[in-house]
Amino acid sequence: MRAMIPYKKQHAKSRLSPALSLEEREHFVELMLRDVVGSLQVAGVSDIDVLTTPKNGVPSDLDVNILFSEHELNNAINGYLDTVSEPVLIIMADMPLVTPGHIKEMKSIEKDLIIVPGKGGGTNVLFIRNPDSFYVKYYDSSFLNHCRIAEEMGQSVHVYDSFLLSTDIDEPHDLVEIMLHGHGLSKSYIDSKFGMKDNGKSRVKLSLCQ
Amino acid sequence: MRAMIPYKKQHAKSRLSPALSLEEREHFVELMLRDVVGSLQVAGVSDIDVLTTPKNGVPSDLDVNILFSEHELNNAINGYLDTVSEPVLIIMADMPLVTPGHIKEMKSIEKDLIIVPGKGGGTNVLFIRNPDSFYVKYYDSSFLNHCRIAEEMGQSVHVYDSFLLSTDIDEPHDLVEIMLHGHGLSKSYIDSKFGMKDNGKSRVKLSLCQ
Repeated sequence: MRAMIPYKKQHAKSRLSPALSLEEREHFVELMLRDVVGSLQVAGVSDIDVLTTPKNGVPSDLDVNILFSEHELNNAINGYLDTVSEPVLIIMADMPLVTPGHIKEMKSIEKDLIIVPGKGGGTNVLFIRNPDSFYVKYYDSSFLNHCRIAEEMGQSVHVYDSFLLSTDIDEPHDLVEIMLHGHGLSKSYIDSKFGMKDNGKSRVKLSLCQ
Repeated sequence: MRAMIPYKKQHAKSRLSPALSLEEREHFVELMLRDVVGSLQVAGVSDIDVLTTPKNGVPSDLDVNILFSEHELNNAINGYLDTVSEPVLIIMADMPLVTPGHIKEMKSIEKDLIIVPGKGGGTNVLFIRNPDSFYVKYYDSSFLNHCRIAEEMGQSVHVYDSFLLSTDIDEPHDLVEIMLHGHGLSKSYIDSKFGMKDNGKSRVKLSLCQ
């Protein structure tokens, strides 16, 4: 099997702007990418492709293959799927809560397609055993899209239920989850910038350390 | 083992008021309670205690023990834990995405304490094998509280990673998760009231059916 990570650094994560400056966000998305790559490698996935554009500067010390595409996300990924002939795990770069255990567990599930839902009908991870019998359709209700496409293509499906993998990092309150449940470079970075404050209710809020 | 469900119906779920009237919310929380009880029963848990107050009217056709307490949540639950001498699973009533599979899997994990984190540091389910060696502290960072208390009391801990169990139903956007991933009475009710609309981004929004 191999893994593929779509990656965008430039002007990334604008919804985090209440918490992090543009420069900080661009640094942080690189740290998240490093954590995702690290978890894949510890889980024994050595063939890792990062799908990006030349402007997005994947760090040269990462042991990954860098693939360029100027197409929008779905066309870029579907073009990629046309080129691979082994099982491929597509994981977004903004998922630093992924652990080697998640990857190993997904590898062990004997279904054609494993979908990890994100909040609000998103798709956070896809493990596609037969890339010639599947295509992706991200954005609007992508979870339902991917279930439907699997059915059309006769692919069996497992929905993988994980809070940590449902947590992509889009908004300031997601950073709290890194502080609570994270590891690696992204956790060190966020811990260095923020604390947590209780608000007398059930959810913890972010507070500035400095 | 037994299960315990804290239950409040009266004026419940005020944060759902943009989507549901008071009367609808009170009806809906009862349906969610029925779904949680149903999943426990299918998983083979027959001793189910619902901890509530006389004003909150637990439906009489449910096969549960109804316990009354006028104390606030933590004192009520800790008072309850003083009275039980077998493993107890504490699950909130607003978790209709729980399945019998979750309950069976938690029963099979050989740790003293199983914590299911909710978003923002909450605790959505606790499975306490030794109720005389644990106490609860809900609200502010309860996930961290419960990890700390387990350490103090020498109890081994498993953090159970589930998107479905991390999803307690508090706000209108949580209703989308019931439509996407739910089952039972709560799903039928929400499906009858709302549809989903795409907004061209990654997350699906609620739309009124009527």
